[in-house]
Amino acid sequence: MKTAIECIPCFFRQAIEAADLIGARDREKKAILDRVAQAVPEFPLSATPPEMGQRIHAIVREVAGSDDPYASLKRESHKQAMAVYGRCRDTIKRSRDALRTAVELAIAGNIIDFGARSFFDVGEEIEKILRREKREIKKEDGGCFQYGFFMEQLSSAHNILYLADNVGETVFDRLLIELISARYPRKQICYAVRGFPVLNDAVAMDACNAGIDAYARIISNGYDAPGTILEKSSPAFRRLFRSADLIISKGQGNFESLSGRKRPRIFFLFMVKCKVVARQLNCEEGAIMLTSNRGTDQDCAG
Amino acid sequence: MKTAIECIPCFFRQAIEAADLIGARDREKKAILDRVAQAVPEFPLSATPPEMGQRIHAIVREVAGSDDPYASLKRESHKQAMAVYGRCRDTIKRSRDALRTAVELAIAGNIIDFGARSFFDVGEEIEKILRREKREIKKEDGGCFQYGFFMEQLSSAHNILYLADNVGETVFDRLLIELISARYPRKQICYAVRGFPVLNDAVAMDACNAGIDAYARIISNGYDAPGTILEKSSPAFRRLFRSADLIISKGQGNFESLSGRKRPRIFFLFMVKCKVVARQLNCEEGAIMLTSNRGTDQDCAG
Repeated sequence: MKTAIECIPCFFRQAIEAADLIGARDREKKAILDRVAQAVPEFPLSATPPEMGQRIHAIVREVAGSDDPYASLKRESHKQAMAVYGRCRDTIKRSRDALRTAVELAIAGNIIDFGARSFFDVGEEIEKILRREKREIKKEDGGCFQYGFFMEQLSSAHNILYLADNVGETVFDRLLIELISARYPRKQICYAVRGFPVLNDAVAMDACNAGIDAYARIISNGYDAPGTILEKSSPAFRRLFRSADLIISKGQGNFESLSGRKRPRIFFLFMVKCKVVARQLNCEEGAIMLTSNRGTDQDCAG
Repeated sequence: MKTAIECIPCFFRQAIEAADLIGARDREKKAILDRVAQAVPEFPLSATPPEMGQRIHAIVREVAGSDDPYASLKRESHKQAMAVYGRCRDTIKRSRDALRTAVELAIAGNIIDFGARSFFDVGEEIEKILRREKREIKKEDGGCFQYGFFMEQLSSAHNILYLADNVGETVFDRLLIELISARYPRKQICYAVRGFPVLNDAVAMDACNAGIDAYARIISNGYDAPGTILEKSSPAFRRLFRSADLIISKGQGNFESLSGRKRPRIFFLFMVKCKVVARQLNCEEGAIMLTSNRGTDQDCAG
């Protein structure tokens, strides 16, 4: 998706939140915002929001004087997600439609995002979402939650590329990948992470920590945007992207950067975290999405 | 007050709202935001928010190619305010404490503000505020609504300087000025307006249209900020400001630009329209304030 005009104030808000997370003082925050401001005139609305996200977080890291200022927050997210892993696994095992529950949990894991929301207790939020899912998600199977279409595409795909998002969320990705791998042992699964730390997004080590390397090949996309900017990604990643039969894309950042692409088939699993995306998808902020690039031109009411 | 770091995203939001009001397209909006962005690094946090407001609206006017792009919106505000004038005047006449009701209505008139809120039906909002005032304002007479102190200072003041805010609100200012003038016929009242059009703020002609010239001398402050930047105001206005015994300051813009001044005695009559000001005054967004520069260091709970 292109950048909306309302994204511009939001870039500054995100920069302040990122600066808050590293404990920056007002003087450092102003230095960050001044540099974000300098980047705005060079940034066309035809670019996707994560392209600016990449700039913002590069500035924050530079002012923070650290390549990975969110390292301790990421450790905390991982810890909180691991604390609920066993219970989530049991929930999946006991459920009538295990794959569906695993998909729902993988989306629920997308609440672990410092980009659009502040830090909070993961277990509690997961509980809430599981309860809400029982009530709401199950009844709607339209553009917002294309589970039937996902199942169909998943069963026929050979090469699956799974695009990671945040640390902690990785643990929920593992639950889904574990299940896909058990159910379809001959499918090739690649789990793609960011090339370098950006905000709380997962890099290769985080995927290994979540135990995903036992079920999927982990690859880096070679870039540090909080999304997937194909043109800036490594040639190896781009080849993998183009040759995949099915892409499972996690998080709003990956949606923002890839939603315009017609091929290959992409399913976007994420929580809607801002008004601009909600408007584009004709849904509410906070909505839980399983939508494909077949359906992104349609709205969620369908 | 100084500019808070959170004001920076809000500057961009305000620029978009201002651009929306003149029907700007995305390309023009981006041009406006690019120029606001260029201004941010030169803008120190030690400056007051209306100083940036002045820059923003000068940019909007330039891109709009008009000295007064809000002329028709201001006419509409004036019309809506005039439609409730008679009823408000009756309410004041019938009330047990006419001056208090006039003060409350003058503050209620501050809802007519395109800077922080969108355009809406004035009569309906005034009704709501009058109802709410009956319930809430009357019970609290602390830092938030220093009516006793205001009465005391008003009765002893000779030269009163009334700082105008928005068009439409001027009609409610007239109700208060009319009453002060009838009750204290020997007091000198000056009604100060912006020197040039900025957003929907009143200039001399708007004050005349509201009939204020029958009760007060109308003077221009010689500048076009959506607040009162004393250093940029005309020498005549500055002299008047310094020699006043009492200043009645309307609107959040005037509060933001003057709240740090210890002299002369200023009463700020306004609705709190953002989180930063609410935090500074320890009150809620939407609170109705009658606070003085004696009390601005205290909070509203007092």
